[in-house]
Amino acid sequence: MLTDIEISRLAKPQHITDIATKFGIETAELSLFGEAKAKVNLSILDRIQDNLDGKLVIVTAVTPTPFGEGKTVTSIGLTQGLNAIGKKACACIRQPSMGPVFGIKGGAAGGGYSQVIPMEEMNLHLTGDIHAVSSAHNLAAAAIDARLFHESRLSADEFAHQSGLSPLNIDPEQILWRRVVDHNERSLRTITVGLGELNGPVHDSGFDITAASELMAILALSHDLKDMRHRIGRLVLAMDKHGEPITAEMLGVAGAMTVIMTEAIKPTLMQTLTGDPCLVHAGPFANIAHGNSSIIADRIALKLADIVVTEGGFGSDMGFEKFCNIKVRESGKTPDAAVLVATLKALKANSGLDSERDINLPDQARLEAGFLNLKWHMDNVSQYGIPVVVALNRFPTDTQEELDWLKNAVMQAGAFGCEISNAFSLGASGTEALARKVVAATAQNSAFRFLYQTNSSIEAKLLSIAESGYGAKGMRLSNEAKEQLVQIQAMGLDHLSVCIAKTPLSISHDPAIKGVPKGFELPITQLKINAGAGFITALVGKVMTMPGLGIRPGYLNIDINDQDEIVGLA
Amino acid sequence: MLTDIEISRLAKPQHITDIATKFGIETAELSLFGEAKAKVNLSILDRIQDNLDGKLVIVTAVTPTPFGEGKTVTSIGLTQGLNAIGKKACACIRQPSMGPVFGIKGGAAGGGYSQVIPMEEMNLHLTGDIHAVSSAHNLAAAAIDARLFHESRLSADEFAHQSGLSPLNIDPEQILWRRVVDHNERSLRTITVGLGELNGPVHDSGFDITAASELMAILALSHDLKDMRHRIGRLVLAMDKHGEPITAEMLGVAGAMTVIMTEAIKPTLMQTLTGDPCLVHAGPFANIAHGNSSIIADRIALKLADIVVTEGGFGSDMGFEKFCNIKVRESGKTPDAAVLVATLKALKANSGLDSERDINLPDQARLEAGFLNLKWHMDNVSQYGIPVVVALNRFPTDTQEELDWLKNAVMQAGAFGCEISNAFSLGASGTEALARKVVAATAQNSAFRFLYQTNSSIEAKLLSIAESGYGAKGMRLSNEAKEQLVQIQAMGLDHLSVCIAKTPLSISHDPAIKGVPKGFELPITQLKINAGAGFITALVGKVMTMPGLGIRPGYLNIDINDQDEIVGLA
Repeated sequence: MLTDIEISRLAKPQHITDIATKFGIETAELSLFGEAKAKVNLSILDRIQDNLDGKLVIVTAVTPTPFGEGKTVTSIGLTQGLNAIGKKACACIRQPSMGPVFGIKGGAAGGGYSQVIPMEEMNLHLTGDIHAVSSAHNLAAAAIDARLFHESRLSADEFAHQSGLSPLNIDPEQILWRRVVDHNERSLRTITVGLGELNGPVHDSGFDITAASELMAILALSHDLKDMRHRIGRLVLAMDKHGEPITAEMLGVAGAMTVIMTEAIKPTLMQTLTGDPCLVHAGPFANIAHGNSSIIADRIALKLADIVVTEGGFGSDMGFEKFCNIKVRESGKTPDAAVLVATLKALKANSGLDSERDINLPDQARLEAGFLNLKWHMDNVSQYGIPVVVALNRFPTDTQEELDWLKNAVMQAGAFGCEISNAFSLGASGTEALARKVVAATAQNSAFRFLYQTNSSIEAKLLSIAESGYGAKGMRLSNEAKEQLVQIQAMGLDHLSVCIAKTPLSISHDPAIKGVPKGFELPITQLKINAGAGFITALVGKVMTMPGLGIRPGYLNIDINDQDEIVGLA
Repeated sequence: MLTDIEISRLAKPQHITDIATKFGIETAELSLFGEAKAKVNLSILDRIQDNLDGKLVIVTAVTPTPFGEGKTVTSIGLTQGLNAIGKKACACIRQPSMGPVFGIKGGAAGGGYSQVIPMEEMNLHLTGDIHAVSSAHNLAAAAIDARLFHESRLSADEFAHQSGLSPLNIDPEQILWRRVVDHNERSLRTITVGLGELNGPVHDSGFDITAASELMAILALSHDLKDMRHRIGRLVLAMDKHGEPITAEMLGVAGAMTVIMTEAIKPTLMQTLTGDPCLVHAGPFANIAHGNSSIIADRIALKLADIVVTEGGFGSDMGFEKFCNIKVRESGKTPDAAVLVATLKALKANSGLDSERDINLPDQARLEAGFLNLKWHMDNVSQYGIPVVVALNRFPTDTQEELDWLKNAVMQAGAFGCEISNAFSLGASGTEALARKVVAATAQNSAFRFLYQTNSSIEAKLLSIAESGYGAKGMRLSNEAKEQLVQIQAMGLDHLSVCIAKTPLSISHDPAIKGVPKGFELPITQLKINAGAGFITALVGKVMTMPGLGIRPGYLNIDINDQDEIVGLA
């Protein structure tokens, strides 16, 4: 079989204006980026506001393993399959981060015959949104330090006189705003800045990966440019020496940050291998961010499509939980069905196996043990009140016997449906059965419900997720988290949602515990105020908001060839 | 008069494909970025290679002052004027950096009725080239630290076994590659990285502004993608523990860095207010970088235009010197004439005046004193063997009497021509006389000569610039610079050009010395190997490769208005 990039390159993309026209987007509503990508101007929202909404399907998965479950493959393949059976379907997915693209072998545009194309454009800069988020984020960091610098060198009166501004008295020990870069940069996790002559004050800082920026969440959750401007204004960047919050508005940098993001707020239209529309917007990393694509992209797609397929990162405890409790709450648009992706490999890995050779062999005991993880995720999705269709993403090594057993087990366990997906190897024709089942699921009367209500305390909301969302037996707050809780209450931010940052490799906080962890207490180490995005981020266990490069990073394989083509993306 | 952004917004840009077609670029050679910007694919170079080259004009200026000399205004106005008198002219200028855009009030798209439009698109992300340079640069930094991390935790054998790579033994004390960000970020000038548990080794690092990245110089100086790939491969990133250089090729990251820059290598076509072509490419900061736009953009423009107007940053001691001694040497294309921009204000400021009120008043003594700076720059340009046309960029407060005196003095001093430019207030009609004079200058037989030959030693080349380029009385190398000189010789890099990083605010190294500094010894504090770009950078005096934000930064004025339009860029 050809590599992903070879398949992508062999497919001649249709001109993106043709994709747009077929989908109902007018050419005047597009800003082209070459022939295969276009930003969609938000003016479209007024024109199509009276259209009825299509159905919304959220794709999630079992607990991820190193073998890849194929959630994006399934999302794109399903979109292709839905169009193949005569539905007007659109995929809405997040932009890939260049961190993983260069860090681990693999892009995030799908794979095989279910891809967004051109895959190299999707996996690299796309239309610059992540760069814009990085730039706006780091302008705020520069603004904080410049203000600290100038105020530290003058008396309050002198500063006010020379600048025409009131002193803010930022406490250098309480700067909440870190910096971001879209790379896997372990060595920048914790740094000291302001060293050298006249560059101070010296203080601790560090970089997160851009997808974890609060601005990325704002991009995903904003309703329009004014809403984005408003949210950026209320970002809490630091505390002053009296313990009062200093916002981006107070620093006078919120307008400029918004200006840097005026293009980023427009979703990017691309196409699948079969010429179906795909809106790409906002960032990944549902472990350390809310990690869902944007409300604006979904709104546009829902007004134009019969069915919109979107995706929450990692397992249903991660991106799907945040989709339901954060994004749905902000958008007001509830999902009509969920697709839960599983593979035989992933289930065997979730039983505790880790050798790829063993995982490729038939093994009924391991399969049954691993099925418990799938069952847990089915139940987790069901508690939100929506029908679950399980998609068994087929690998060439899978035996029909094991697939049959699993399908039967899934149906016995109460799924609305279960279909084998051949999205990777066959594309649209490999997902038609899945597509029909998903259409049937969305025709059900579902009654979506949130896991928690926002009018309860932050502590109660955290406990809901710990217990109902992960099956924990209670939670434990660090002293730092307890102090932060008091601060949050004092600031009147108790009404916000919560966004958990934890390992995606286990339903618990411990990546070593596979399957269905039980009886664990969720350790909450730190709380972060995301007043602009509208949630409190809780760090659980040893989660890192900046990945690192492995011992044999993906970039080693990436280059240009003699024909000046990009090679090594997969 | 309207503000720059109001004038830009009132002008309805022509569709960029129309600008391209008129200029001789085929639609198939464009990648559109909206309706007013397009990248030009390098395939055009084959198609037009047999065209004759047009004339090349380099715009430079007197020593800059806080009042703005209007070099870009003059470059764009001259391009408009040349087209108005029937010449096919194209401007080739660098992309603005967002550092100054948000740092000081002002963009870099020209001003008044001589602008590149849409000015906000030019001043913000343009087509993402600076973001690409930042990303590729910082990937190399991440790669160095990841390699250090993994090698530091394993024995050489274990590392080789687990990674399949030979250990590089990078010396953490000798990492030459810093990091970059496109903001004015004083607090990141000197930092410590690798702090915290398992993020090390700890070592010093720091950020430069992206325009100062060696990759930006490579972007400007590369002939094509393969040349860029080759140059990136030979970047010296660090030294190993035996003092041997470690290149991007050895680290295995050169291919991925090139892949990040495959779009950036294509120049961006925009238009002036009167619909004339402008190719925007590579970065600014001729004080701390070579600071000229790209060879590729010039090559395309020269094959299609009668006259190409390009620009070297700051005074003729800065961008113009580097244009001649670095860019011309790489491109093989010598300039046919120079335009030297001066203003009455700048000359009075160069006489030592600094109050804006005094500078706006007629003052013959001050004017005569300041004229010596202009005379110095005329002589400096003339020593390269090309005719000089002085453009007097007129301000509303200028008196005709002073302008007449100055024009006479300039002609007496041996200029090929001298014309008043009303580019700012009148656009094309304000520069027609200047345009005619420039056409006449380019019709001269000129005999360009370099300031130094590359086969002399680095020390001799530095001394040539110090003495012939700045009028210094010798130079003085710090001990660090002396050691670096030995290292450069040992590495066989003595044949490279030299690129001086120094203050632009004086011809000397001391920004306080205005006018024509004499008798000073040039203090060379540090040498940097830029083996990829092909030059040795010499830091002179207290020059900073990262600017800082002022006490009242430009971003305070920048915002969106009720109509969602950007305000505050100027």
